Amino acid sequence: MNLPKKVSITDVGPRDGLQNIKTWIPTETKLAIIDGLIDAGMKKIEVTSFVHPKSIPQMADAATVLQTVKQKYAGKVTAVALAPNLFGAAKAIELGADEITFVVSASEKHNLENTNQTIADSLAALKKVCEISRHLPVRLVVATSFVCPFAGKVEPEKVAHVVEAGLLAGAAAEVALGDTVGKAHPLQVEKLLNYLMPRFPHVDFILHLHDTCGMGLASILTALNMGITKYEASIGGLGGCPFAPGAAGNIATEDLVNMLHQMDVETGIDFSKLVNVARMIDQTIPLSVNGHMLKVYN
Amino acid sequence: MNLPKKVSITDVGPRDGLQNIKTWIPTETKLAIIDGLIDAGMKKIEVTSFVHPKSIPQMADAATVLQTVKQKYAGKVTAVALAPNLFGAAKAIELGADEITFVVSASEKHNLENTNQTIADSLAALKKVCEISRHLPVRLVVATSFVCPFAGKVEPEKVAHVVEAGLLAGAAAEVALGDTVGKAHPLQVEKLLNYLMPRFPHVDFILHLHDTCGMGLASILTALNMGITKYEASIGGLGGCPFAPGAAGNIATEDLVNMLHQMDVETGIDFSKLVNVARMIDQTIPLSVNGHMLKVYN
Repeated sequence: MNLPKKVSITDVGPRDGLQNIKTWIPTETKLAIIDGLIDAGMKKIEVTSFVHPKSIPQMADAATVLQTVKQKYAGKVTAVALAPNLFGAAKAIELGADEITFVVSASEKHNLENTNQTIADSLAALKKVCEISRHLPVRLVVATSFVCPFAGKVEPEKVAHVVEAGLLAGAAAEVALGDTVGKAHPLQVEKLLNYLMPRFPHVDFILHLHDTCGMGLASILTALNMGITKYEASIGGLGGCPFAPGAAGNIATEDLVNMLHQMDVETGIDFSKLVNVARMIDQTIPLSVNGHMLKVYN
Repeated sequence: MNLPKKVSITDVGPRDGLQNIKTWIPTETKLAIIDGLIDAGMKKIEVTSFVHPKSIPQMADAATVLQTVKQKYAGKVTAVALAPNLFGAAKAIELGADEITFVVSASEKHNLENTNQTIADSLAALKKVCEISRHLPVRLVVATSFVCPFAGKVEPEKVAHVVEAGLLAGAAAEVALGDTVGKAHPLQVEKLLNYLMPRFPHVDFILHLHDTCGMGLASILTALNMGITKYEASIGGLGGCPFAPGAAGNIATEDLVNMLHQMDVETGIDFSKLVNVARMIDQTIPLSVNGHMLKVYN
């Protein structure tokens, strides 16, 4: 085994996790989760999404969440906001987001379902977002990088196309590969990284996996051995996928941090504090926690 | 990645899984689970345990379960029975068990708690069991091969001691390494196998992992890459550990089979039929199923 000494984790729970919970989560709960994550040592958090409240009412308080985080923790945490379009990106930038997340699917069918536009149109929108964001990094997430809930297995060529076009459009050299439905397996992760890494040697690839089939940590182990040092995870394993029945949330941040610490890989995160955040979520939003570690330390 | 073409799986759910469920499971339910596993292609099943009914009342029907399986499936499945002592082994042999499982812990404290005797006494009992079993294989399971719920991390030397003494006592050259509490991590699995494999080149090591921390499949991926081709798992991820709060059941057989088939590793098992067994358990014994795949195909 050839593990890196240190990895960095972005918690996407406040966005990817909470947007998939059907009940309204009060703004103060969202902020308490973010407080807990920052207290545990999390340096980068995807705090909200500037999506239209009609599409995802769970994120209707995006402005308040982002502004509060920026006021409270300016310079202490990188506050990432997802923007699905130019309008959302302009709003996020205006309110002080440190980075913008922009999602384009590798699968045409999923992109149409998710954004109501073609991949080409999404890439054109990404270009405009990069233009208005100027020095602010725009993080491209390639959704359905492994499996599409509509079209099945996604070939590496399709992912590479979105990565290449996204970089040309101005996205940051830090691209997340999203396993939107949580069916990627370790061999597929190895194959995709083997395909992408030599083609884009200056890009840091980030893994954003869901844990639908229980293979999430096995896939991360594979990526660790290939030198990938950036991961996205969701406190408590919050979340799901609206287009994939049975799809689970992201890999639980506490499960990932536990495995890494056990194997002496540093994360800069205080594991006990992290589990306390998962516990608080479990007590506040019943049945929302999918991770394993809370059960061990409950 | 360097994966084997084929692996064999022993389902230990009817024993390790069901013995940890506190309510009484009717004999016909146990037999229906075993029927389903055999129909799905499972070739080796740990069907029951000849433990004293006062210790584990859940296995009070051991004789009926074993006899029924033998009558119905003689020659079609290897029926394994756990025996905690000479008395239980004699009974299992008399009733036609194809193999005997005998458990010795690598941790002295766990062995005392689990069997009320020292490791040395357990090894002496194993010797007697091997004597009466004659040509019948006695499968040694080294419990707490990684972590002891009382003493913490277990050093490979302690595991090697039990393996060596067990083989001298007459155990089969197929030894299971049990992660009793489910806290083994991939690096620890690699280290233990690296320690044991060159010392016991003629022994087939079997991994018997619980999935408490969600690292089970990651650890199996590590073992697969090291050439380990025999695994124990539990349909539905049934089970737990009476001495470890929060400890989960074994790795769910259906989760393991899914990962293996996705990576083109053969198991000889029909995945759809296997998920149907998990579904039947979920409908019959509510809240018992811990595996991921049933949620995907429910």
